[in-house]
Amino acid sequence: MADTGSAFSLAIDAMGGDAAPEIVLDGLELAAERHPQARFLLVGDEARVGGALARRKRAARVCSLRHAPEVVSGDLKPTAALRMRGSSMRIAIDAVAAGEASGIVSAGNTGALMALAKIVIKTMPEIDRPALAAIGPSARGDVVLLDLGANVQCDARNLVEFAIMGDAFARVALGLTTPSIGLLNVGSEELKGDDRVRAAAEILRDSHVGTQFRGFIEGHDITAGTVDVVVTDGFTGNVALKTGEGALKLMRDLLRQVFTSSVPARLGYLLARPALDRLREWMDPRRYNGAILLGLNGVVVKSHGGTDALGFAHAVDVAMDMVTHGYNDRIKDGFDRLAGRNRLAPSPN
Amino acid sequence: MADTGSAFSLAIDAMGGDAAPEIVLDGLELAAERHPQARFLLVGDEARVGGALARRKRAARVCSLRHAPEVVSGDLKPTAALRMRGSSMRIAIDAVAAGEASGIVSAGNTGALMALAKIVIKTMPEIDRPALAAIGPSARGDVVLLDLGANVQCDARNLVEFAIMGDAFARVALGLTTPSIGLLNVGSEELKGDDRVRAAAEILRDSHVGTQFRGFIEGHDITAGTVDVVVTDGFTGNVALKTGEGALKLMRDLLRQVFTSSVPARLGYLLARPALDRLREWMDPRRYNGAILLGLNGVVVKSHGGTDALGFAHAVDVAMDMVTHGYNDRIKDGFDRLAGRNRLAPSPN
Repeated sequence: MADTGSAFSLAIDAMGGDAAPEIVLDGLELAAERHPQARFLLVGDEARVGGALARRKRAARVCSLRHAPEVVSGDLKPTAALRMRGSSMRIAIDAVAAGEASGIVSAGNTGALMALAKIVIKTMPEIDRPALAAIGPSARGDVVLLDLGANVQCDARNLVEFAIMGDAFARVALGLTTPSIGLLNVGSEELKGDDRVRAAAEILRDSHVGTQFRGFIEGHDITAGTVDVVVTDGFTGNVALKTGEGALKLMRDLLRQVFTSSVPARLGYLLARPALDRLREWMDPRRYNGAILLGLNGVVVKSHGGTDALGFAHAVDVAMDMVTHGYNDRIKDGFDRLAGRNRLAPSPN
Repeated sequence: MADTGSAFSLAIDAMGGDAAPEIVLDGLELAAERHPQARFLLVGDEARVGGALARRKRAARVCSLRHAPEVVSGDLKPTAALRMRGSSMRIAIDAVAAGEASGIVSAGNTGALMALAKIVIKTMPEIDRPALAAIGPSARGDVVLLDLGANVQCDARNLVEFAIMGDAFARVALGLTTPSIGLLNVGSEELKGDDRVRAAAEILRDSHVGTQFRGFIEGHDITAGTVDVVVTDGFTGNVALKTGEGALKLMRDLLRQVFTSSVPARLGYLLARPALDRLREWMDPRRYNGAILLGLNGVVVKSHGGTDALGFAHAVDVAMDMVTHGYNDRIKDGFDRLAGRNRLAPSPN
């Protein structure tokens, strides 16, 4: 583990998610094996978490438990979560803000986590607005997509910031040295789209990521893997992510019907099963679990509330990648270079 | 055929598309069988189209050929297409504007078709902006999605107009008596999204389609078939359509790899093939060929440029549905009712 200057690699919200704290602890049992040198600050109800932790030897070795008397429920409004000082989510976030931990992973209420993280951990001074990112599958490897809904209205500056943050994230999370970047649009021609995307494209072309910038891409380019980092506003990104997931689900459901529709089809399924299982494993949503709030003074990863131990462990993997590879330093570096270049280059407006 | 008052049901651009005029004529051969009482005004180069038409007996019986000396190429800018008076696309559109034909089907240049149709056929007086719509598959039957890119920036009024046009279109194209309508958003809660979608939702709730309006839906609801008509702005709709198509393509490509990856997998494919073929047929993009420009004083259907005869015939089917079921009268009726209701109800703003 890189020296992050914090006592704990990550603070973990033990009470967030549909089957907390059991799934969270099972996930940490897996994470402890993958990251034996990590130290986790586990925050939750002592009575409920203590015994469960003691029964998981590997997790118990890497976790310190901190009591939190309250829990942010799944339907609590962000404003109400902000007033609740004793929740496991809040105390975990406080630990990040205080520098005790380099980041937080929570499977709890998304809106509450985003609001608390923004207000308590705070946005990096270089950045106007944080963005929500995720990794998804494509025909040519994993792809980073952002923003997924942190900002429903964005201007050109926000889109440029998302590109810089996405670039840094693809380096640490996908291990790429020069990720390619595309701006989602309704056509790949330079004249297409609205003023916002055209202005963002102009700034990116002139920036230090100019050689990585592939210009405009379209919806089908996401799963084609045309670029490593897909940049868009939070409204479009949220719809694109959920539409893509919906289309894959439709196909999975229909295939299930196909393979149970007749005796020969069932037999065919059994014969093709090893290959189909490899496909299922490759597309496993748990492998892509974890939405990452980029641009705060600490690493913030939201695990899906309904995931299992493997999914939660994957969310911890993403957060650990960001902590050990100094994600925030890379963002700072990116913005310093953007600012330096902008001083030299004529303003695009 | 309903009496549409026009000499021709449809004008057909014989020269549009990758393999025109052959594919167009093959498509009309199929269409002539399905719509024996229709009359088509076929517009194109007499020398190239005349002989090809003579060889297709059924098509020849329902088509009248009109000469057009020029062709709008696939890469021609809309502004250049507007200046070209002798193109097959232009002469076909002129026939609609003159009332000779009730609509046009073209597999040519999309941007040129949209620009020409808007300027020559003109937008209905009730409507601010036309919208591009398409039909796609879902787990619960076919779904209408609009706008797909005719308007990259939309306000609440445009979204409401799209809902009214989508409602009328779902009635004639899907044969539904009370189509359900959803507004695409980043969450289903009433407070989610931007001012635009919230204002549109408020107007729709109070309108004559209020009982059909299901409120906000999310990306995954499109393929889940939560509603019959999905309403969104042209930027989001274009990205959603292409992202969904891309995800389905990824899955098809991966399945092809699965079923050729080993001898047992190949054998499994052969056993499951009848059921897999039914699935493929059901999801066949040709069944969903045809993007419809709604809100003009005539029916305008754009066939995919790379489709085959079956796909082109399907685009003709959609246009014929709209012509014979009086689509534009239904839209007018919808806007009259919207205006009437709005006079009675307090303004939402």
